Amino acid sequence: MRDAYHEELDSIGDDLVEMARLVGSAIGRATTAILDSDLKLAENVIEADTKVDDLQHNLEARAIALLARQQPVATDLRIVVTSLRMSADLERSGDLAQHVAKLARLRFPERAVPRDLHATILEMGQLAQRLMAKAAEVLITKDVDLALQLEQDDDEMDLLHRTLFQHLIDDRWKHGIETAVDVTLLGRYYERFADHAVSVAKRVVYLVTGEHADDIQPEIQPVGGVEGA
Amino acid sequence: MRDAYHEELDSIGDDLVEMARLVGSAIGRATTAILDSDLKLAENVIEADTKVDDLQHNLEARAIALLARQQPVATDLRIVVTSLRMSADLERSGDLAQHVAKLARLRFPERAVPRDLHATILEMGQLAQRLMAKAAEVLITKDVDLALQLEQDDDEMDLLHRTLFQHLIDDRWKHGIETAVDVTLLGRYYERFADHAVSVAKRVVYLVTGEHADDIQPEIQPVGGVEGA
Repeated sequence: MRDAYHEELDSIGDDLVEMARLVGSAIGRATTAILDSDLKLAENVIEADTKVDDLQHNLEARAIALLARQQPVATDLRIVVTSLRMSADLERSGDLAQHVAKLARLRFPERAVPRDLHATILEMGQLAQRLMAKAAEVLITKDVDLALQLEQDDDEMDLLHRTLFQHLIDDRWKHGIETAVDVTLLGRYYERFADHAVSVAKRVVYLVTGEHADDIQPEIQPVGGVEGA
Repeated sequence: MRDAYHEELDSIGDDLVEMARLVGSAIGRATTAILDSDLKLAENVIEADTKVDDLQHNLEARAIALLARQQPVATDLRIVVTSLRMSADLERSGDLAQHVAKLARLRFPERAVPRDLHATILEMGQLAQRLMAKAAEVLITKDVDLALQLEQDDDEMDLLHRTLFQHLIDDRWKHGIETAVDVTLLGRYYERFADHAVSVAKRVVYLVTGEHADDIQPEIQPVGGVEGA
């Protein structure tokens, strides 16, 4: 049987998973909102971010209470401190999903993303959502190999990001400056969202192994991978 | 006389001030590097960020050791946990200064910023540096009024950011898409840098008053201020 202390630690872990689930869903819905210029969906994403913020505040308060009351040491202490950091990553990811939705709202009823970039933005949105789903899985399973895989997925995001820039600086770009600005910011939001998902996974690696993820070689080397940004 | 424990707490505070000083200097130098297309200065900023990262890693390790060894409660616990967050803000600010420098290096020997935007980017860079200098002062003095002032300064950054966008979407924009992309990202870097400086100041307010800065009315209301982003 778990004592109250470990139950509280577990419940902090559960909240991190819930936050990852919420922000993963948010980035998926925000992407749909911006591609379809769906105002209602955009507003729904913008409002739903409060839930993520509330979860974070609540998690922080409980983590600090736990530190004060139980004074954990060694591994448990690392878990609590690392949870605080992961909650910050997840809260920020929620903000980034909200930024995508706000851009959809700002441009409504126009579409912020021109047709010839739909496929790339869709891929970035889906990849961001997948990365966060994997981060949630890593939080649950503590699977170090899966965590290291996320870095390779992140290389894919870098590649998509470059594709986006290639489109932008192509002489045939005909969508004007405002759209170029929107697309530049969108690319940045997805890239940062992915960074935070990777960061959550890396922190789990650190908890499990005591080593920073960058010092561990993944079992499978990326094939033809691109250098991380 | 201070005991070893409070000396360690003080030294964590000193390191935060040192980090703020380093990243404030970095954003100033990065701004000069990008406006003058000074490759050597840009590379100097890029390399110097290691020092900030090292300070953060060291600070984190010591903060966690302090939690484990001394098991602080109440105010001291809040100081340690909040210091961890502030160090994350400052480390990220260093990254953003580095991004500005990297853009300078990428475009060298060309200039990333067109002449008619020099004044605005210079102002953003100077304001970013001033905000960080004030954040450092708040860290030292714990001056709540000064901390609340930072939010008003941040309104100024939002205003500059809007000015930048107005230039970009002006029909007379003649600098092409690549420059528009560069300027969009630059604007975002300065804005985020300012956000982190404000965040550090807000966390000091929380430490001193136990209240979140957003719930406190500043003594002086902004005159003709714009809404925060």
